Amino acid sequence: MKPIGPLPPEFAGQKGALAIAGLDAEAWATTAGDTPLFVYDSDIVAARVARFRAAFPAIDLHYAIKANPHAYLLARIAPLVDGLDVASVGELGVALAVKPAAAISFAGPGKRDAELAAAIRAGATLNVESEGEATRALAQGDALGIAPRLAVRVNPDVELRGSGMKMGGRPSPFGVDAIRAAALVRAIVAGGADWRGFHIYAGSQALSADAVAETQAATVALAGRLADEAGQAPPLVNLGGGFGIPYFAGDQPLDVEHVGIRLAETLAARPAALADARFAIELGRWLVAEAGIYLTRIVDVKESGGEIFVVVDGGLHHQLAASGNFGTVVRRNYPIAVAARMGEAAEATVSVVGPLCTPLDRLGDRVALPRMAVGDLVAIFLAGAYGASASPAAFLGHPPATELVAPLSGS
Amino acid sequence: MKPIGPLPPEFAGQKGALAIAGLDAEAWATTAGDTPLFVYDSDIVAARVARFRAAFPAIDLHYAIKANPHAYLLARIAPLVDGLDVASVGELGVALAVKPAAAISFAGPGKRDAELAAAIRAGATLNVESEGEATRALAQGDALGIAPRLAVRVNPDVELRGSGMKMGGRPSPFGVDAIRAAALVRAIVAGGADWRGFHIYAGSQALSADAVAETQAATVALAGRLADEAGQAPPLVNLGGGFGIPYFAGDQPLDVEHVGIRLAETLAARPAALADARFAIELGRWLVAEAGIYLTRIVDVKESGGEIFVVVDGGLHHQLAASGNFGTVVRRNYPIAVAARMGEAAEATVSVVGPLCTPLDRLGDRVALPRMAVGDLVAIFLAGAYGASASPAAFLGHPPATELVAPLSGS
Repeated sequence: MKPIGPLPPEFAGQKGALAIAGLDAEAWATTAGDTPLFVYDSDIVAARVARFRAAFPAIDLHYAIKANPHAYLLARIAPLVDGLDVASVGELGVALAVKPAAAISFAGPGKRDAELAAAIRAGATLNVESEGEATRALAQGDALGIAPRLAVRVNPDVELRGSGMKMGGRPSPFGVDAIRAAALVRAIVAGGADWRGFHIYAGSQALSADAVAETQAATVALAGRLADEAGQAPPLVNLGGGFGIPYFAGDQPLDVEHVGIRLAETLAARPAALADARFAIELGRWLVAEAGIYLTRIVDVKESGGEIFVVVDGGLHHQLAASGNFGTVVRRNYPIAVAARMGEAAEATVSVVGPLCTPLDRLGDRVALPRMAVGDLVAIFLAGAYGASASPAAFLGHPPATELVAPLSGS
Repeated sequence: MKPIGPLPPEFAGQKGALAIAGLDAEAWATTAGDTPLFVYDSDIVAARVARFRAAFPAIDLHYAIKANPHAYLLARIAPLVDGLDVASVGELGVALAVKPAAAISFAGPGKRDAELAAAIRAGATLNVESEGEATRALAQGDALGIAPRLAVRVNPDVELRGSGMKMGGRPSPFGVDAIRAAALVRAIVAGGADWRGFHIYAGSQALSADAVAETQAATVALAGRLADEAGQAPPLVNLGGGFGIPYFAGDQPLDVEHVGIRLAETLAARPAALADARFAIELGRWLVAEAGIYLTRIVDVKESGGEIFVVVDGGLHHQLAASGNFGTVVRRNYPIAVAARMGEAAEATVSVVGPLCTPLDRLGDRVALPRMAVGDLVAIFLAGAYGASASPAAFLGHPPATELVAPLSGS
């Protein structure tokens, strides 16, 4: 038997039929017309936003669309946040439908000229990732007759301790090394751009409040040094994100309130060059992951070599990360439950596998679950971030999963 | 510096501009209208088929569509092979467009009733994966008034030594354990089905000819025992595939001719119950992987912490496996080249990264490559199998890659 990760707080205490936004899982499957499906509870996202606002009253909140770009969900999130961070022209278009361009920033190491021009024309801020990109962005701005809104993405000289994905403190394709950032700011200002400040992202999926707080303090200090060096006061300092959620057994939730207290202390003592700056935190996963559930129906239950395999109609083509095949070295189990039997005692240890003809398609590896049978729904939690959009939907030619946003419109 | 895997034989000796099917890489990019793009050279696939035919003159060749389901490529492959293996109703539809139903078989552990009915209605063979699925397939056949064509997929009691992905010799969601297979054959025959034989798949991506030959011999012996036990002579024994290709430094190509000689010996001495059986080998990757090249253009070249990053416009959203994030534990480099400078000496060690805002998006990790600059094309080889269709195309909202099949129609 292998352990299962913790259920999100909204679901951990449930008994009987799994309820999502007040409707039971079978009702959601009926609404979708078929399984598998994703349900995103936008009230859970709103609760995370509220928790952020209470903990960080003076900080802007940005949503990183890449975590979940579903249009209906985004339409509910957009009014709750101060900015949207996009990573492609495709995401830019989605963002412009729900937010003014001045509240949108575009990051990514491989922006092409047409992409730079699209952002400049729209009036979005480009997080410039290199000197070469800055030069090309200025040229596109000249050609369009628009002063481009440019922020400088900095590869910080610190890393986020304990983060699932480190993006600072090492050679990186993201941003310019801190040692070159001030010169780039001066070049951008001299080039006639509207300089928007710094974007500094040190890592993601961290669960230690002290680690996040230390990184934020180091980031603020770095932004102050760079502002002094550049002789320019940044309008905005994007401190990155890095807020993790518990996926696996033993993971403890991030103490966000502690991070808020520490950041307030940091900002109270911030360098003079940042006196008038706004600060933003950019979150994706932490806002939406726990709001999403992937529901899939049992097609077969079979035995092989003394092990029980529960075969479901959903798999890695919709939920690659839950199969352990996306950015993880050791496969561990996402939280999983039998949707009709929340809170019931486990009766058997089973492996939950998808319909794909590959051994990679395993959503639960030797997990202890209550009684179940063909036709029952299985729920895979933490499906709200890096799920449907981050999975190989076309692989093996199965249909895409339906995505529903709760509460339903009109309800 | 980390090593690069070997280029396929058709490309290994090239000098100067990379030629694919006689056209240089830039001409392919012009044809596509933009980068990134995949080019699949169907003549390379045909050469692999010819090599197979010479080595296995008495064996049927099936193509496993999941390796590359691109419709134009499939239209060129279908006339060259004896059968098509599909893994979903989506793939079934694609296959029926180019091959008679009697030459199509459908495998996969999670077939739903509607999927079983679709295959039965079309007249394709279902590789039955469990007793429960067999019961459902017989019921669907009864409801349709059609005797379903059913083969029994067997989870063999042997594994394929040295295979990249083991699918036999252990508890598995695929097929029924060998010990129960004969009983299932009898039940299927008694249920009025048209029993088509056995499907026995022990593993994939093996490079040792002796290991493949031993597994085939064990598979033939197993099929003979099961046929005796069931008292039924199988019309067809699908021996699975498992033929690997060299991806990484140090990999040696599979000696297919040696496998052919050994299999001929095995079949010359086969059990009496298999005297009239046909035998098939089911190949995907080995037929198409080396025929595909992913071409992507350099957007930026930058330095960070003493390392050089070459940022290209293609990435893991099109070629997940090359980024090392699909079914691999240790990331290794796929073969990669600067398209205009085939055969030139390396000038620098660089990392080739994609445009996605994630550190996972790395197509070449500290590889030694010739001189290159913004605007140059980079070629990633072995992109013909498990590439475009096995990657998270929607991730981060970039456009899909164009897929072209060579030779171009009319050329």
